[in-house]
Amino acid sequence: MARRSDYTVFLVNTLLELIKSPADLKKLSLAEMSALAAEIRALMIKVVSQNGGHLASSLGAVELIIALHYVFNSPDDQIIFDVGHQAYAHKLLTGRTEEFTGLRQLGGLSGFPKREESPHDIFNTGHSSTSISAALGLAVARDQLKKTNAVVAVIGDGALTGGMALEAINHAGGLQKNLLVVYNDNRMSISPNVGALSQYLSLKLTTQEHIVLRERVKNILERISPQKGNRLIKRFQRAEESLKSFLISPTSFLAAWGFKYIGPIDGHDLNRLINALKQVQNLKRPVILHVLTTKGKGFQPAEDNPMAFHGVGRSKAQPPPRVLDLNHVAPKASESDKRSYTDVFGDFLIEAAKEDNRINAITAAMSQGTGLDRFFELFPERSFDVGIAEQHAVTFAAGLAAGGLKPVVAIYSTFLQRSFDQLFHDVALQNLPVAFAVDRGGLVGEDGPTHHGGLDLSYLRLLPNFTVMAPRDEHELARMLALALTLEGPSAVRYPRGTISGRPDCQETPLEVGQAEVMREGQDLAILAIGHPLWAAIDAAESLKAKGLEATVINMRFIKPIDRQAIEKAAQTGKIITVEENSVLGGLNGAVCEILGQLDLKGPVKVKALGLGDLPIAQASPAQQRASLSLDAQGVEKAALAFFPQPRTIV
Amino acid sequence: MARRSDYTVFLVNTLLELIKSPADLKKLSLAEMSALAAEIRALMIKVVSQNGGHLASSLGAVELIIALHYVFNSPDDQIIFDVGHQAYAHKLLTGRTEEFTGLRQLGGLSGFPKREESPHDIFNTGHSSTSISAALGLAVARDQLKKTNAVVAVIGDGALTGGMALEAINHAGGLQKNLLVVYNDNRMSISPNVGALSQYLSLKLTTQEHIVLRERVKNILERISPQKGNRLIKRFQRAEESLKSFLISPTSFLAAWGFKYIGPIDGHDLNRLINALKQVQNLKRPVILHVLTTKGKGFQPAEDNPMAFHGVGRSKAQPPPRVLDLNHVAPKASESDKRSYTDVFGDFLIEAAKEDNRINAITAAMSQGTGLDRFFELFPERSFDVGIAEQHAVTFAAGLAAGGLKPVVAIYSTFLQRSFDQLFHDVALQNLPVAFAVDRGGLVGEDGPTHHGGLDLSYLRLLPNFTVMAPRDEHELARMLALALTLEGPSAVRYPRGTISGRPDCQETPLEVGQAEVMREGQDLAILAIGHPLWAAIDAAESLKAKGLEATVINMRFIKPIDRQAIEKAAQTGKIITVEENSVLGGLNGAVCEILGQLDLKGPVKVKALGLGDLPIAQASPAQQRASLSLDAQGVEKAALAFFPQPRTIV
Repeated sequence: MARRSDYTVFLVNTLLELIKSPADLKKLSLAEMSALAAEIRALMIKVVSQNGGHLASSLGAVELIIALHYVFNSPDDQIIFDVGHQAYAHKLLTGRTEEFTGLRQLGGLSGFPKREESPHDIFNTGHSSTSISAALGLAVARDQLKKTNAVVAVIGDGALTGGMALEAINHAGGLQKNLLVVYNDNRMSISPNVGALSQYLSLKLTTQEHIVLRERVKNILERISPQKGNRLIKRFQRAEESLKSFLISPTSFLAAWGFKYIGPIDGHDLNRLINALKQVQNLKRPVILHVLTTKGKGFQPAEDNPMAFHGVGRSKAQPPPRVLDLNHVAPKASESDKRSYTDVFGDFLIEAAKEDNRINAITAAMSQGTGLDRFFELFPERSFDVGIAEQHAVTFAAGLAAGGLKPVVAIYSTFLQRSFDQLFHDVALQNLPVAFAVDRGGLVGEDGPTHHGGLDLSYLRLLPNFTVMAPRDEHELARMLALALTLEGPSAVRYPRGTISGRPDCQETPLEVGQAEVMREGQDLAILAIGHPLWAAIDAAESLKAKGLEATVINMRFIKPIDRQAIEKAAQTGKIITVEENSVLGGLNGAVCEILGQLDLKGPVKVKALGLGDLPIAQASPAQQRASLSLDAQGVEKAALAFFPQPRTIV
Repeated sequence: MARRSDYTVFLVNTLLELIKSPADLKKLSLAEMSALAAEIRALMIKVVSQNGGHLASSLGAVELIIALHYVFNSPDDQIIFDVGHQAYAHKLLTGRTEEFTGLRQLGGLSGFPKREESPHDIFNTGHSSTSISAALGLAVARDQLKKTNAVVAVIGDGALTGGMALEAINHAGGLQKNLLVVYNDNRMSISPNVGALSQYLSLKLTTQEHIVLRERVKNILERISPQKGNRLIKRFQRAEESLKSFLISPTSFLAAWGFKYIGPIDGHDLNRLINALKQVQNLKRPVILHVLTTKGKGFQPAEDNPMAFHGVGRSKAQPPPRVLDLNHVAPKASESDKRSYTDVFGDFLIEAAKEDNRINAITAAMSQGTGLDRFFELFPERSFDVGIAEQHAVTFAAGLAAGGLKPVVAIYSTFLQRSFDQLFHDVALQNLPVAFAVDRGGLVGEDGPTHHGGLDLSYLRLLPNFTVMAPRDEHELARMLALALTLEGPSAVRYPRGTISGRPDCQETPLEVGQAEVMREGQDLAILAIGHPLWAAIDAAESLKAKGLEATVINMRFIKPIDRQAIEKAAQTGKIITVEENSVLGGLNGAVCEILGQLDLKGPVKVKALGLGDLPIAQASPAQQRASLSLDAQGVEKAALAFFPQPRTIV
């Protein structure tokens, strides 16, 4: 590649087009790499403004990723990105520039590292706090297989509140393998970190130890002659500052775990980054390199409001693709102007909390994503964002309940998986009245396989004493939440991402624990749905009616306890379709089939299960995903017609 | 209560009989409390020698628990015991001495704190690392409800390696509530801690920082006149030691998390314990009191070999109850002299590792319990005990697999629940060849509800790409493990605690992924079993045959992928019994019923599910538990006969 330092950053993608692999990057000068960083930012802003994605964290990590690929030799050297949504620059530097416009689209690049996408993607990420564990495994494998490559984990300050990351640091410090942890500290994570650890690592802590240290030093110096003493005291005051920042600092903290600590350094200064990484290369032991970055770096709206730009929704006016217009990148644009389930939850909880001061809200670094931000403003004393620490969040809530309060835990379905044992051991077995607001249940669209809430109905159903429900629409969500707060045991309400809406003209019926709602009756087949897929079932039933088939349609509402009578009614038709945005294993389909086995049936009953299959669901729009899984009206209708091999009155 | 200091410790239970509640304890002198401690130890050894239980940790915590109840006012002041198996003295001091002989027996006292058992049991424990989360919740509730009681979490050094405990410390340090964490450091946990944190908290670390500190101090002193300098250097050398132990110590470490650190103090010195606890009472902030105890204290065999006495099996010659014989307390006595599943796994893995040097063994503080101790001795380089850190263990293993090794993770079923998300996100989605040896699957007996492995078939079945199997006997276990190591994706073999044995005369048939083994055929009904309950099914079939009923019996072997043809064969009888030591929700029963829904059946099929129900299974012997759940031959036969309301040839 020719030197092209005469090009300016305004020739968008001119340098980037020449980077087919990290080897090309190594030919660039520092100035060229700076220009490249600007190109990468411009392209990221452009693509994310069209496709949605994680803008602020990716913008903040551009220089860091350039420096990593400049110093290390990927894929021989292995770089693992915690959470992974900050790794867009990594994709661009490893030969995926052309495909980048398809980021997060069906058939396009994943928004996260994916082993099947590139040999440079060493380990898939998506959920938080996994990178050090994976990197330590890779480092051990490297040593056993007599290789000499570097292993690097890049982890943010948010992910470091996850206990799993601390478990890994503890183990890594003990093993003393050659392992680099780049601690990408933007002092922000998804929400501001609330824990003591983050304060500490941000050097903000004034500890009692500091005071005691000063007194001990003074004690010594006072025994010296006044004159010399005074000079010494001055000298020592400087030394003390140095000692303090040295000892009461990340250094001693991380040294406690057997890591060498280097930093903090400016994570946007390529020269310093490269020098520090080169220095680290030779240490051959566990090292933490502390890098300070600015979330949203280089894009003022995101720098000013990094939380809003953490995850950016797809632009509303999507087709045709708009030209880049920085003033119109929409933070968290929703798919419509309708209220989302998340909003309904947030508003409901505020009203409930006004009535009952025992209500507390707990989340794990998702206060905005779960709609709790206004609650947190109004009731700060009853609001707990524990950081990325889902396990603690659940047992902390169990403690609140044991203490007489009414905790409501709002966590995305996919992240609640982290708390499976706490749900069982601390909440369910003790039958404590903790209510779970399980947001992002079902398909999530562009975030792909790691982020679907596709297992919650299956695993929540296993928990003793739990009441588990999913609303057909936003209105039923509020009613279910209200019901949850009246229960004396644990409960979960599971609802989807977005604004999929009910039918305003659809009347409400009484909501009783364990009772389904029969929406229509027919003798030819029965469609049992839970959650918003009910509307696909109803539309399918309308269409089937036109074809001479009468379908019973039931809104199951509760997967636990499940309505046995409703299933018995459905069984009388001999043909059942279950519709759920959850795995067909163990969820609604599983629960219905288990009941069928218990019934005294008069004849065989065939069940067609519509839902998530047993394979990862790739990224696409939610509508595309639903269509591919027959979770839309057409899919349900097709499944119904398949019951009738001799079509009766098909037009 | 009268003063009785003239009594000696040899009058067993004389003092203890007078302690009906902690209020009675407060009337005792220090000397009497020491005598009481000896009585408590003697009673614990006697009862555990008969009933089994957690002896070493309970022996180590006697003075600590006496001091806690002397200083605090339980149950107004709330004491939460992490893991909970060290809390026997707490049970004895809170009015449960008479019931103590029934410890861990059906209808008797639980081996863990249980809210339904006593108002002094504030929060149920059993799994590790939950206490600080729960205590923090209770502290927040206390403040909101304008109460002033103390909240105390008692946690060991092993539990502190659990990331969840670190998440809680981080949150607690941020909130600055009045909260006492008693750090019960026996430097042992279940297995010796391997992580850096434990070394650090045990004051064993020699850090680079120490060297740098010394040099900085010398730098200052060298600028002083030689004479004064020398004196100062000496003085400073002493100060340096003090500074070092002060700064490079738990103090600064925990101060990093916003805790006041006190200690370490001798955890068997009642006077010091009481004084320290009184001091702490007035601090009204997060405090960690570091207490050094000796696991097995007061019982030499347990002091000498605390790992063997961690969990003690029930004495073999149980009825009639033996008199206390300290020389014959059986560490880890198994129910028979036969080899256990655990032994088979341990031996298999050693042979496999001799053949294939890519095999690595990983566990989470269960190296002995899972039978890996000899493997760890033979292959230390390929052995990883990560401490109580199941989340990290699984993703670490995923990293090993991604790096080209063959990791085998051995974790008890109940604790693997902690890793549900890591199993899904890091192993299953990436289809990495990690093999899981899931010990203690099914009923565990006396440890009760928190420790059954009753959900694994249900939650493992949800994981994409996984092969999940359970052997009928020890021989099949070895074959399944061998099969697991040939797979290119993830797998789990799930097997029970203990030595339940197969039939030596039962011939082996080829083992192929997803294929069940038909043990016998009959047209009247079909019994589908997975794991060792197969033998109950076969015995039941024999008995049914004598009554004129011919049963098909199938060893399902795989729950994922499941043998559809075997289920189709079973369905032809119209009557199916599923038998599993797992929840009847979502496990074998769930999988079978789901398949039945998919089949083109000629008539109705009724399914009777035998397994764990939806409620916690209380402690009892495994045999009692099996009988209560109809998981023995009698239970299976009874379920079969219930299919035939008009008995045919019942004698």
